[in-house]
Amino acid sequence: MNSLHFTAESASDGVVERDFTVDGIPGVLWSPASGAAGRAPLVLMGHGGGADKRHRAMLGRAHRLVTGCGFHAAVIDAPGHGDRPRSAQDEQDVAELRRAQAAGESERPVVVRYNARLAETAVPEYRAALDALQELPEIGADGPVGYVGLGLGSAIGVPLVAAEPRITAAVFGMMWPDALFEAADRITVPVEFVMHWDNERIPREDSLALFGAFASREKSLHANAGRHLTMPMFEVDSSVRFFARHLAPAGTSPARA
Amino acid sequence: MNSLHFTAESASDGVVERDFTVDGIPGVLWSPASGAAGRAPLVLMGHGGGADKRHRAMLGRAHRLVTGCGFHAAVIDAPGHGDRPRSAQDEQDVAELRRAQAAGESERPVVVRYNARLAETAVPEYRAALDALQELPEIGADGPVGYVGLGLGSAIGVPLVAAEPRITAAVFGMMWPDALFEAADRITVPVEFVMHWDNERIPREDSLALFGAFASREKSLHANAGRHLTMPMFEVDSSVRFFARHLAPAGTSPARA
Repeated sequence: MNSLHFTAESASDGVVERDFTVDGIPGVLWSPASGAAGRAPLVLMGHGGGADKRHRAMLGRAHRLVTGCGFHAAVIDAPGHGDRPRSAQDEQDVAELRRAQAAGESERPVVVRYNARLAETAVPEYRAALDALQELPEIGADGPVGYVGLGLGSAIGVPLVAAEPRITAAVFGMMWPDALFEAADRITVPVEFVMHWDNERIPREDSLALFGAFASREKSLHANAGRHLTMPMFEVDSSVRFFARHLAPAGTSPARA
Repeated sequence: MNSLHFTAESASDGVVERDFTVDGIPGVLWSPASGAAGRAPLVLMGHGGGADKRHRAMLGRAHRLVTGCGFHAAVIDAPGHGDRPRSAQDEQDVAELRRAQAAGESERPVVVRYNARLAETAVPEYRAALDALQELPEIGADGPVGYVGLGLGSAIGVPLVAAEPRITAAVFGMMWPDALFEAADRITVPVEFVMHWDNERIPREDSLALFGAFASREKSLHANAGRHLTMPMFEVDSSVRFFARHLAPAGTSPARA
């Protein structure tokens, strides 16, 4: 039995939002206000580097998943992010990142190493959070589960999805592939992969190579003109439809999102 | 004044279907049954090689555009296709294609040359059809126009969109780029480009290169796992949403498709 504790609850626009902790790790669960009617699929989300569980990208995706599909959406703070303390190693990695940025050097070696270290801690945390969330009657132990995370959310999510058979569909993107090839090669569930064609930080060839590495029989690459930080809203909508296709229980037809 | 003649009309499921000819070229126009209410955008479609204006891919896209967006959709037979006679040159090119296929040789040089020749004839035919269709009060001379065509539909569509300023959004894919780079480089309107990651006929690098060649500031590449002839239905839906985003008159909100 995991220690899931709800610490706050609010509701608006048909969405119930609950803060929780699992083994002390803080997170947020968004659910349909009409959820008492039965179980619904769950999409786990991972926030980006330097962001946290309440970043507007998380709020936006969660509301679309809840109101568009009737799904649950949940996110936890990554180690050293949001409401979690930074370790001495976190401080050191962040300082090294800031130094590289200030010096005009590539962030790549720092981010790859830093995020791979965070993923080692975060993957078991996500699995424990999933254990706990599946004990809720409105989610259940055998319901469909998806994962979406870009940037740091992919650095954590790729090894997570490779290790976690309960996750049956995933959206990734916007991360250097260096530390992820081996895990990507073990992923066989449907994947939607987002990249920027003109990304000035992550070379196009590296994103194409990571997409190529997924062993999934069903995978889709979405490459949009633009640079690293511009994510078109229609890609958020596309990922919601992706989860609607892959997680909606057979015979149901979620609202088109 | 172009010679647009309607030759047959039927209606079902909220869609009015009219066969027409323009200067003797046969086509089909699909329109909302409630179209008398006002003008609506038009999407021109191009069928694939060896297919024709009534291929199920045309019917499927047209019905989605009409019922999902309230748009018009129109297609004409390519030269030597559908109800149009084959010239001696057409017969020769098709025979050469069949010979290459039977010999296990690459279709590429034959298809590239054959389709480029068809495009030279088809581009002015499409422009004349657009002239004629825009004289209909339910379409109008200054309404938004899009184009969608894969395979031969792209071999015709890329030079068409490069030459035709009335077309302001386009969906392409599934064609060797050899004869298309120069025209792609002149296209600046939003483009959605579909490819198969594992296409056994058109090398991945060639599709990526053609996508890269479009000068459009807004362009999206959708690469799906799979081989040449498997087009996921969600890509058809995606292209309909693409046109809804780019062609719907400002201030209106077409039905989500």
